[in-house]
Amino acid sequence: MDIKIPNTDKKRVVIIGGGFGGLALADKLCNGEFQVVLLDKHNYHQFQPLLYQVASAGLEPSSISFPFRKNFRKKRNFYFRMAQVKSVLFENNEVETNSGNVKYDYLVIAAGTTTNFFGNETLRQASLPMKSVEEALTLRNTLLLHLERAMDTTDSQERKALLNVVIVGGGATGVEIAGAISEMRKYIIPKDYPDLGDDEFNIHLVEGSHRLLAAMSEEASANALKYLTDMGVEITLERHVENYESGCAVLSDGRTIPTKTLIWVSGVTAEHFENIPSESIGRGGRLIVDKINLLKGTQNVFVIGDIALQTEANYPKGHPQVAPVAIQQGELLADNLKRMLKGQSPIAFEYVNKGTLATIGRNKGVADLKKLRLSGFFAWMVWLLVHLRSILGVKNKLMILINWIWNYLTYDQSVRFIFRSRPKED
Amino acid sequence: MDIKIPNTDKKRVVIIGGGFGGLALADKLCNGEFQVVLLDKHNYHQFQPLLYQVASAGLEPSSISFPFRKNFRKKRNFYFRMAQVKSVLFENNEVETNSGNVKYDYLVIAAGTTTNFFGNETLRQASLPMKSVEEALTLRNTLLLHLERAMDTTDSQERKALLNVVIVGGGATGVEIAGAISEMRKYIIPKDYPDLGDDEFNIHLVEGSHRLLAAMSEEASANALKYLTDMGVEITLERHVENYESGCAVLSDGRTIPTKTLIWVSGVTAEHFENIPSESIGRGGRLIVDKINLLKGTQNVFVIGDIALQTEANYPKGHPQVAPVAIQQGELLADNLKRMLKGQSPIAFEYVNKGTLATIGRNKGVADLKKLRLSGFFAWMVWLLVHLRSILGVKNKLMILINWIWNYLTYDQSVRFIFRSRPKED
Repeated sequence: MDIKIPNTDKKRVVIIGGGFGGLALADKLCNGEFQVVLLDKHNYHQFQPLLYQVASAGLEPSSISFPFRKNFRKKRNFYFRMAQVKSVLFENNEVETNSGNVKYDYLVIAAGTTTNFFGNETLRQASLPMKSVEEALTLRNTLLLHLERAMDTTDSQERKALLNVVIVGGGATGVEIAGAISEMRKYIIPKDYPDLGDDEFNIHLVEGSHRLLAAMSEEASANALKYLTDMGVEITLERHVENYESGCAVLSDGRTIPTKTLIWVSGVTAEHFENIPSESIGRGGRLIVDKINLLKGTQNVFVIGDIALQTEANYPKGHPQVAPVAIQQGELLADNLKRMLKGQSPIAFEYVNKGTLATIGRNKGVADLKKLRLSGFFAWMVWLLVHLRSILGVKNKLMILINWIWNYLTYDQSVRFIFRSRPKED
Repeated sequence: MDIKIPNTDKKRVVIIGGGFGGLALADKLCNGEFQVVLLDKHNYHQFQPLLYQVASAGLEPSSISFPFRKNFRKKRNFYFRMAQVKSVLFENNEVETNSGNVKYDYLVIAAGTTTNFFGNETLRQASLPMKSVEEALTLRNTLLLHLERAMDTTDSQERKALLNVVIVGGGATGVEIAGAISEMRKYIIPKDYPDLGDDEFNIHLVEGSHRLLAAMSEEASANALKYLTDMGVEITLERHVENYESGCAVLSDGRTIPTKTLIWVSGVTAEHFENIPSESIGRGGRLIVDKINLLKGTQNVFVIGDIALQTEANYPKGHPQVAPVAIQQGELLADNLKRMLKGQSPIAFEYVNKGTLATIGRNKGVADLKKLRLSGFFAWMVWLLVHLRSILGVKNKLMILINWIWNYLTYDQSVRFIFRSRPKED
């Protein structure tokens, strides 16, 4: 059965995924030359860089989300369909989803990545990933529930496990969530849980390589380490979390940490669809594309963003899996599709790297800019401005700004609610 | 196993439920004379009068919720425990919860009411109730999901059922949610779902008695009927929804309405605990109390708010189940417990009714005040001010005010997200 979309004389571009790349592409492509169909499993775009603030009860999920239908309100020839893509039927120019099939003239796979548990099912079941708004909300709910349960229990081992947070992965997300939870420990927990001893709530950060923020400069790594250590986060480098046994995270040196809150931000793997030829799949499950993001071995299937593996002189192993690459690829692909429609030849992609940022709590950040490295308050301000500027929607900007000012002045992460919710049919 | 709470020489007052009554009582009681233990299944107080705005995507759930621990931060001898009470063991002065038992010197039952399906399990399973923030979120998620599914489907019967909303119950909640959804139909749906025909999305309101807002004046009922009819809500009076069969709501006159969105706001019944002697249970499951809210047949168990059945000259069948009664009873009980501790005699409760309000969308409200009946814009303004004033927390007031102004100016109910979330262990 097909999903209901009108057939017109325009070429149909089907985009899988409305993340940074898919959205940039759709925004630029939607002016009448093509029929654009956007498929996403959620009904909103999510601003992933601020997920950790949702997880740590600093922001409402709605502040970092934006309904697709609202974004594309005034566009003609645009169709959003909430659907989960299962496979690509290349021979039919068709994708198969959970609610029916959709034909395409051009297909753009912009489905991003998902959390990588390296095949360890036990770890997957024990862990809290943080790749989506819903996962961030689940983490918020779980963190708060464990604090409440710790108050009830008379079993000291269980209390310990409820009050140890173990974060696996010292990249930007791991560093940022560690910073946010340690601020919660400093400013919120002593007031909200006066029965809790000073040293009962502990935050561990475990990173496999020899430094935090491995994608940034050594200077940024050293600063992040210092900031987090000062905030009381217990950092373990050059160790992996290899398993979860009897309520404990098991480290590669054999050490065990009792915990019920195992936050897994240790790596990603590309989203997987059935039917993709194995010779098109590269490292990390990414799909191998040429200089114009065309999928190897196809004529009308493009891949952009985190899920694409594209090499250029400066990036022989592929681009970093970050928002700016996806946005730039999406924008270029919109231009290229228009050029090809006019019979012009497409332009090869070149990534313009404007820099990398991370924040580690109140007044503390690190920034590797083009010609400048910043740390501390100034890097934190740059981080705030860049993220506020990037987020979609005037109301979101306003709500985030108010929340940030509020939280800054009151030292309060104020949305500390355990909300359970699903649609009725789930 | 007991829940961990320190034993002191102070008398312990255990309060079941942190709604309007329980919170008013705890707030006033928490100044050192008693040890106060508040039990609630949620970690926050919810402002029920605005649930319908959460359900209709106008407000975030966090704007109408307030964490208990934050409210009681500076209080000594106060303990919050997130727990669900199962039964009252009167003979032991103890309550049994899902996470252990708690002893009391005084017990106050302030657990409120839950949705009444009049024993019809089919209706319970098919319906969306709206008594809690989580239920309101579920309704929001479901309403939005059904719109998305209607876009996908090629089955015209299914499409119809996905696009008919049936609201059962024409009290304040039913009228308010009908108004909010019809505004969504007017201002949001034509822009967000341009494929949808003008007459495809329908809202039905079914009320068993001969008028809407039966608890208010005839004048208010007539105005509500006129407003909703003008907004295109199809109102059926003097009919009940008796069953749900083959995807249709079945009315008492035999008429059927295909719907997957059956909103049930038709009545309440008191929360039930095991072990309450049947002679203490009155109409609607409410617990019979005397003039000082003491439960019939006990010396140290009080009942306040919606779950209490107390008669006085003006209210021979018991008080209306509304917030002001609960707040006034909670405040008086705090005074009375203090008086009793000093050996003074307690004061009998008398309800001071300041009036009843309801709103029916933009610029339209009805108000029965002591000596004045209002309707239209002015009643709507009174409604806004009263509710903004009543809600707990400066930040909540600010966020709600901004959201209301935003929604008013943009005609937008802006939090249209389908978020699924639970704590991990659920």
